[in-house]
Amino acid sequence: MRVGVLTGGGDCPGLNAVIRAAVRKGVQEYGYGFTGFRDGWRGLLEGRAVPLGIPEVRGILPRGGTVLGSSRTNPFTADDGVRRIKDNLAKAEIDALIAIGGEDTLGVAARLCDEFGIKCVGVPKTIDNDLSATDYTFGFDTAVNIATEAIDRLHTTAESHMRVLVVEVMGRHAGWIALHSGLAGGANVILIPEQRFDVDEVCAWIESRFRVRYAPIVVVAEGAMPREGGMVLKDGSHDAFGHVRLSGVGEWLAKEIENRTGNEARTTVLGHIQRGGTPSAFDRWLATRFGLHAVDAVHDGDFGSMVALRGTDIVRVPIAEATARLKTVDPALYAEAGVFFG
Amino acid sequence: MRVGVLTGGGDCPGLNAVIRAAVRKGVQEYGYGFTGFRDGWRGLLEGRAVPLGIPEVRGILPRGGTVLGSSRTNPFTADDGVRRIKDNLAKAEIDALIAIGGEDTLGVAARLCDEFGIKCVGVPKTIDNDLSATDYTFGFDTAVNIATEAIDRLHTTAESHMRVLVVEVMGRHAGWIALHSGLAGGANVILIPEQRFDVDEVCAWIESRFRVRYAPIVVVAEGAMPREGGMVLKDGSHDAFGHVRLSGVGEWLAKEIENRTGNEARTTVLGHIQRGGTPSAFDRWLATRFGLHAVDAVHDGDFGSMVALRGTDIVRVPIAEATARLKTVDPALYAEAGVFFG
Amino acid sequence: MRVGVLTGGGDCPGLNAVIRAAVRKGVQEYGYGFTGFRDGWRGLLEGRAVPLGIPEVRGILPRGGTVLGSSRTNPFTADDGVRRIKDNLAKAEIDALIAIGGEDTLGVAARLCDEFGIKCVGVPKTIDNDLSATDYTFGFDTAVNIATEAIDRLHTTAESHMRVLVVEVMGRHAGWIALHSGLAGGANVILIPEQRFDVDEVCAWIESRFRVRYAPIVVVAEGAMPREGGMVLKDGSHDAFGHVRLSGVGEWLAKEIENRTGNEARTTVLGHIQRGGTPSAFDRWLATRFGLHAVDAVHDGDFGSMVALRGTDIVRVPIAEATARLKTVDPALYAEAGVFFG
Amino acid sequence: MRVGVLTGGGDCPGLNAVIRAAVRKGVQEYGYGFTGFRDGWRGLLEGRAVPLGIPEVRGILPRGGTVLGSSRTNPFTADDGVRRIKDNLAKAEIDALIAIGGEDTLGVAARLCDEFGIKCVGVPKTIDNDLSATDYTFGFDTAVNIATEAIDRLHTTAESHMRVLVVEVMGRHAGWIALHSGLAGGANVILIPEQRFDVDEVCAWIESRFRVRYAPIVVVAEGAMPREGGMVLKDGSHDAFGHVRLSGVGEWLAKEIENRTGNEARTTVLGHIQRGGTPSAFDRWLATRFGLHAVDAVHDGDFGSMVALRGTDIVRVPIAEATARLKTVDPALYAEAGVFFG
Repeated sequence: MRVGVLTGGGDCPGLNAVIRAAVRKGVQEYGYGFTGFRDGWRGLLEGRAVPLGIPEVRGILPRGGTVLGSSRTNPFTADDGVRRIKDNLAKAEIDALIAIGGEDTLGVAARLCDEFGIKCVGVPKTIDNDLSATDYTFGFDTAVNIATEAIDRLHTTAESHMRVLVVEVMGRHAGWIALHSGLAGGANVILIPEQRFDVDEVCAWIESRFRVRYAPIVVVAEGAMPREGGMVLKDGSHDAFGHVRLSGVGEWLAKEIENRTGNEARTTVLGHIQRGGTPSAFDRWLATRFGLHAVDAVHDGDFGSMVALRGTDIVRVPIAEATARLKTVDPALYAEAGVFFG
Repeated sequence: MRVGVLTGGGDCPGLNAVIRAAVRKGVQEYGYGFTGFRDGWRGLLEGRAVPLGIPEVRGILPRGGTVLGSSRTNPFTADDGVRRIKDNLAKAEIDALIAIGGEDTLGVAARLCDEFGIKCVGVPKTIDNDLSATDYTFGFDTAVNIATEAIDRLHTTAESHMRVLVVEVMGRHAGWIALHSGLAGGANVILIPEQRFDVDEVCAWIESRFRVRYAPIVVVAEGAMPREGGMVLKDGSHDAFGHVRLSGVGEWLAKEIENRTGNEARTTVLGHIQRGGTPSAFDRWLATRFGLHAVDAVHDGDFGSMVALRGTDIVRVPIAEATARLKTVDPALYAEAGVFFG
Repeated sequence: MRVGVLTGGGDCPGLNAVIRAAVRKGVQEYGYGFTGFRDGWRGLLEGRAVPLGIPEVRGILPRGGTVLGSSRTNPFTADDGVRRIKDNLAKAEIDALIAIGGEDTLGVAARLCDEFGIKCVGVPKTIDNDLSATDYTFGFDTAVNIATEAIDRLHTTAESHMRVLVVEVMGRHAGWIALHSGLAGGANVILIPEQRFDVDEVCAWIESRFRVRYAPIVVVAEGAMPREGGMVLKDGSHDAFGHVRLSGVGEWLAKEIENRTGNEARTTVLGHIQRGGTPSAFDRWLATRFGLHAVDAVHDGDFGSMVALRGTDIVRVPIAEATARLKTVDPALYAEAGVFFG
Repeated sequence: MRVGVLTGGGDCPGLNAVIRAAVRKGVQEYGYGFTGFRDGWRGLLEGRAVPLGIPEVRGILPRGGTVLGSSRTNPFTADDGVRRIKDNLAKAEIDALIAIGGEDTLGVAARLCDEFGIKCVGVPKTIDNDLSATDYTFGFDTAVNIATEAIDRLHTTAESHMRVLVVEVMGRHAGWIALHSGLAGGANVILIPEQRFDVDEVCAWIESRFRVRYAPIVVVAEGAMPREGGMVLKDGSHDAFGHVRLSGVGEWLAKEIENRTGNEARTTVLGHIQRGGTPSAFDRWLATRFGLHAVDAVHDGDFGSMVALRGTDIVRVPIAEATARLKTVDPALYAEAGVFFG
């Protein structure tokens, strides 16, 4: 039995932990061989295979990113993509494939499995935590820790100077990072893509905070948008809801706050530092267990399935179930945080 | 409505986050007043009440420990304890009590509620994660992160020198910290209190590791014990299983390894640094939600209940259910980690 | 003997460590009393004094910011400023003043001492490390550590995706933070205010980096400016060299790189997180020693002097000497880093 | 011109940064070739050479330990050591050698250079900071940061429970790590090898601390020793002063404190985590500059010299000068810290 492994989509702390765990268990317990494909589906299309044994996965557990590289290539939009994948799998003598990725990567795996009989097992990956069917995805806890630590640092300035501090975090379509880091960091305002915000209400919260002599900290997801228009649109791209996406909402909001309240406002844009560096212990634990259970699914012949976290258990669900809809922040959960606003 | 709050048992990152969240929500949404009692049940016995309003909880979210202090006092072993508690609650005009603590503190709360009609809501707390009825307790994730970071650092030495590195982590009766940090840190041996270890097997794993030219890292819970006797007993105390507890198993094991394998072994004893410092983002999130939901339970009159985590939801369970038995590491889960040994 | 203490200018990790050390030594060794003034010179102008004894400084060592608050108020531009200061010092029975701050705060202290006979001792403070007469100022090491950790995280993405990563760090007039964090973080381009940069040269370095299949990381000080014009000026303010200051050089440069090289570029703007949070061990050590030696200077009657670091020694220099000119990055030192560009 | 590089002695964060900087500058600016020797002098004795070009040093800057491996082998005690070294240098066509290490490694380099004409340049390395002729050695700042963070965490417990917390840090012959981390961490007692301590005085400080209702934190260097005997000696080894070295002074002291004061005491032994993991920004800066200047010394033909830090400058000194005596903590500097004891 030879198992192929690939990682697709944006990089995410924990990818290497999945790879390592799958290889360790597959080799030692089931006697499998492993082959990696470079840069997600692209490497499989192009037949770029790399050996993947225990020596190759030694020492990669704490390292962010992915030793296999990644891409956003979709084989269904490539010329003759499925045939080339089948040929390359046959040439590399691959019996089953573990695909680690987000909505796009897993969607491809589901189709390859369901429509073309390629034996795939999925491992969910998204730093944004917006995949259904799993309580958490690895990478998310790391991102939340990084954002929370940044907010912690801003409190120091908030206690010494009367300034509004705006921090823009990741999350184009789902506000999980903003909500978790905002709550954990003690932010005074948390804005998420799921609910359009009212700039006047934000300013009211800010002014109420100033009245107790502390400077307000505003956490805003990059995909959050004001209730009404008037934003400076920078790239004209569109988000999942069909709205024009705002690039730079943090800076835009800081200017609005300055204009409307007269208080100085400063912006921090965390950007890619949220998805870099060593994974948190939780993410390593989750990713490791995902890797172990993915290879078990291969061993059980449970193809078309994806590993997922439910409570403290790793379970299997149909890949399609996981990618059918975006997991967004429930309004009730967001409302729970409202007690800390202002 | 006036709500009393106390924290009992060992300190644990996240206690302050619970207190803050309960007070913020109780005051702002339900119009409650709050009173803190110093040093757990002792403060309630002695009538040492402190004001607990929004100003008192400002800025405490990221701080470890507990602003209310703690103790291990059990009012049922104190002279006339229940009557004194009732008197002090009446004097302070307390209508309901939120008790934050582990097995002992919650056990007292359950009895006071069930047998003496004192309106209690429990919030579970243990750094060891060994309370039933909740997926996780706050403080645990912080401890695991600290231990994992320590193991990460030891890998550096392990790559440069041929030495055995033993790290002793917390966990007298349950091996959760050892198992999670050992897996997350990529340890080569993980020893937990739930399963007696065989020193010769440990030495065999160590020697197999040396053969691939890496130095082995052994994570041992403070409550782990060898299959046979021969240990230097330091304090003669007994553990939950009726065994003589080994103080200093890390150092003892290091000496045994040196004697049996001839390799140099060094020990790190993390001790109390595992329970100190700022809580991780996960622990702040969990503790904050526990605080919010505990005050909701008070509002709903759901006394005798305890908040608990199930997946991503906060639920309520009878306090007694949570304290009935220790949540230890399942043998199957421990076996899952075995693929990384040696 | 009663000593007044104030902190002026931007907040900076280590301020509290200075205050604590001065008070501890002054009270215990010399029997002094201490009085704090709120919000820098403004509090002294307005007579807002606070008690400052050993209980008040307990636990503040690891806390960022300043328990005394800060402001940028200059008493020489206030009505009757000097007389009000003298009155308030007399009213509070202050014999000597320890002023902790940057160029502005220390400049005021020097004039008050030299021209008006107010007994001042200075403690230098600037996160930018741009004060002459001292090897380092506290806060700088903390800022460099934060920026370096951010760069470390970006390397993960740089290894997995072919993107240009631009990180904007503090430093309006001096490039110390950019230079140190860029070198420590292994940046491929470091741009500082002291030397105008050539965008084409930056693009050449970037393309040379891509040729070895790693994505480039560009560290740019907020005050860095291109050799020629064409920048989108956001606020029209001017820097110390008489140039128009560029707000948002990071984002501007990312766009230029995208336009000129065709590579995607992403920006991180660290902003105020660089000056927040707990001070590094080095900064606590330096700040503590500055506090101890400042109170020694008071004891020796060495007024008009400022404490400074020279090698591993704390020395005293005339305040005026320290504030006479900005300490900028020497071209030879910047050239030393050039071997890592590209 | 071909330059050999080796690293000797205990591992230390920053070794890789030195190697990388030397190679980058040597190759790019001077057109040198480089060869690494494995495991210090042992690899040179045995002729185990590895290629060391720019690809080999890519990505190693933030990694602790040394990619070249290390040992404590002394060629002067090996059979025919000098001749074998000369042969292996000739075989590998090495023109000059950069030796990175502590007292022993540098002592060998000095003799090889002075007595046998082998062209050596030294780079000082010791985590203990106890080498003369340089203000700081790399690795020290990292160790101090790790120890300080541990002490910070212990403060949480110290504020919540009335326990004595003893933390044992590195430092067999010099108390630099204990002094710096103890000061930076706000310890209440700091014990160093340079001054024998009086257990009764320690207990008096502890009791004075308890009187202000805070639990005391004691930082003790592993080489610190009580004024009088009575210690349980574990290994019978001797320290540099001819005294019997105490293994486990932390635990010994904790027991003494418990016996004499009746207070519970807990011990943390940091061990090797102090020398592991990624170097701090300061250490990377220092190590990088040491590497750059070492290759400059080779280029200038300045053999027998060692790079050193003086203030903010890198200078050259004769290797012999640096290794002639141990740099220990000056009594006046230790006395400065005394104001914080108790």
